[in-house]
Amino acid sequence: MNGTVTPASPVLVVGSVALDSVETPFGKVDDALGGSGTYFSSSASHFAPVQLVGVVGNDYPVDKLAPLTARGVDLSGLEKADGASFRWRGRYRHDLNSAETLETHLGVFSDFRPKIPEAFRRSPFVFLANIDPRLQLQVLDQVEQPRLVACDTMNFWIESRRPDLLELLGRVDLITLNDGEARQLTEQTNLVQAARWILARGPKYVLIKKGEHGAFMFTKDSVFFAPAYPLESVFDPTGAGDSFAGGFIGHLAATGEITERAMRRAVVVGSAMGSFAVEKFSNARLLEITREDIDRRVQEFRQLVAFDAELM
Amino acid sequence: MNGTVTPASPVLVVGSVALDSVETPFGKVDDALGGSGTYFSSSASHFAPVQLVGVVGNDYPVDKLAPLTARGVDLSGLEKADGASFRWRGRYRHDLNSAETLETHLGVFSDFRPKIPEAFRRSPFVFLANIDPRLQLQVLDQVEQPRLVACDTMNFWIESRRPDLLELLGRVDLITLNDGEARQLTEQTNLVQAARWILARGPKYVLIKKGEHGAFMFTKDSVFFAPAYPLESVFDPTGAGDSFAGGFIGHLAATGEITERAMRRAVVVGSAMGSFAVEKFSNARLLEITREDIDRRVQEFRQLVAFDAELM
Repeated sequence: MNGTVTPASPVLVVGSVALDSVETPFGKVDDALGGSGTYFSSSASHFAPVQLVGVVGNDYPVDKLAPLTARGVDLSGLEKADGASFRWRGRYRHDLNSAETLETHLGVFSDFRPKIPEAFRRSPFVFLANIDPRLQLQVLDQVEQPRLVACDTMNFWIESRRPDLLELLGRVDLITLNDGEARQLTEQTNLVQAARWILARGPKYVLIKKGEHGAFMFTKDSVFFAPAYPLESVFDPTGAGDSFAGGFIGHLAATGEITERAMRRAVVVGSAMGSFAVEKFSNARLLEITREDIDRRVQEFRQLVAFDAELM
Repeated sequence: MNGTVTPASPVLVVGSVALDSVETPFGKVDDALGGSGTYFSSSASHFAPVQLVGVVGNDYPVDKLAPLTARGVDLSGLEKADGASFRWRGRYRHDLNSAETLETHLGVFSDFRPKIPEAFRRSPFVFLANIDPRLQLQVLDQVEQPRLVACDTMNFWIESRRPDLLELLGRVDLITLNDGEARQLTEQTNLVQAARWILARGPKYVLIKKGEHGAFMFTKDSVFFAPAYPLESVFDPTGAGDSFAGGFIGHLAATGEITERAMRRAVVVGSAMGSFAVEKFSNARLLEITREDIDRRVQEFRQLVAFDAELM
């Protein structure tokens, strides 16, 4: 900024590294790279160095992770445990709006206790992907004064770990969740009221994702909305949310700026990354795009919502 | 524009004038002003003189229409027929997303044959609200070289009057329909593809409304998106779409400009009017707001989507 190049801060992500088998109306794939940590890293690594903490079983085809290493993702916090890797099998019907889970095998993930390597503990940006809030809290006990902590969650934890999740809300700067989860957590139908409910419990930023309908970012004083990019064909929605988060946090780490202006731009960068993620199976599209592709799509977002409020 | 004031062109609307009985989680109202023509006129009259063509029964409490006349709506094309007025009774559940129709009595509306008064036939802006496409075509046979013709439609006509609707598409400049209707009409799940399907059949502009999720405007070369205003409480969603159309067409008629720039701004003005409409029962909120309220909300829309794409 101002002509000088700020080196990007590292981003620590704690999340799942899985093998996904997915069927959509357009094709199917077996044992592809999946998991929140994988999608997040693939996306964030376009902007900043990423440190991934997670666990895989000794059956995991680790050579599949080589493209991540090549993109600067530090896998030294990826534990290898005796047992089977986390596997998910899902199917999307014609409308692509919600995944139908056919099988979930947690494997070694069910005993996962995140251990943050010494070298990762001072990362200024931390993303707690969608895992048990008790583990998310354990991660926070191990990191030292991060500038920004963001977390994700899901319906299962809202139901089964409510007190832990509420404790977590008091310790994060930002939470991302989808509209259904926001309503479930807050018992408010109206999203503005749901966001207010969450803001009152700790986070300074609440990011409510509405899938194909875009995303809201709420603060105490402002609301920002970014539409989803109107893609002509969505191939596989898996990982869109984590790719969004990766673009969002990665972009903040790249600029080093945590202001309303930077956060708004980061929401758009996140939306762009989410829109790329769904164009191919697994993280394939995220790995092939260039910085130029990303910049072009951000400009397309700008065109999408541009209007002249004057001359009324 | 350029400092000179262009007098607004008149807008002709052909639609229903009804009596609505509505129940929402927040209250209920009986025999309130309703109908597409009423909502459209209440909204458009903030921007341009409106000419309303429709029909009411001899039981219609015409004094209820006095506020429209006071706002410059010309009711000389509103026929009074022997019989009962169009009555609709509906209910919204907690999520407010879709109305449950409890009763519909078409009354004199079932024999409605629109007759456009001589004085209205040269109106440069024409809105064919949601009525039988055969009647919408009859209106077009009576008007003379309008600058812009827009139409609305619904699932019932898509099912029962498909050939007429396709003929109509070839004779309008713009169609507004909701996402479900766009998918039903085109048999395309993807909205970009649905819009392309419609654009290929005549209209230069396709406006796809997604209710609380905002609205898309598609042309052959561009896509514009305006979010719905994130209201903290939606009181009664009835009439939001027609109020949107009234703001949209009314604003175009006020500026006299039919360009991409003007159309984008008009979508935002329409979204603003739709957001006011749902704040109270019937057209009550539309009648009480001032030009200042509208301008303020348009600026809020601008804030809602504003981001700085530079400084990446």
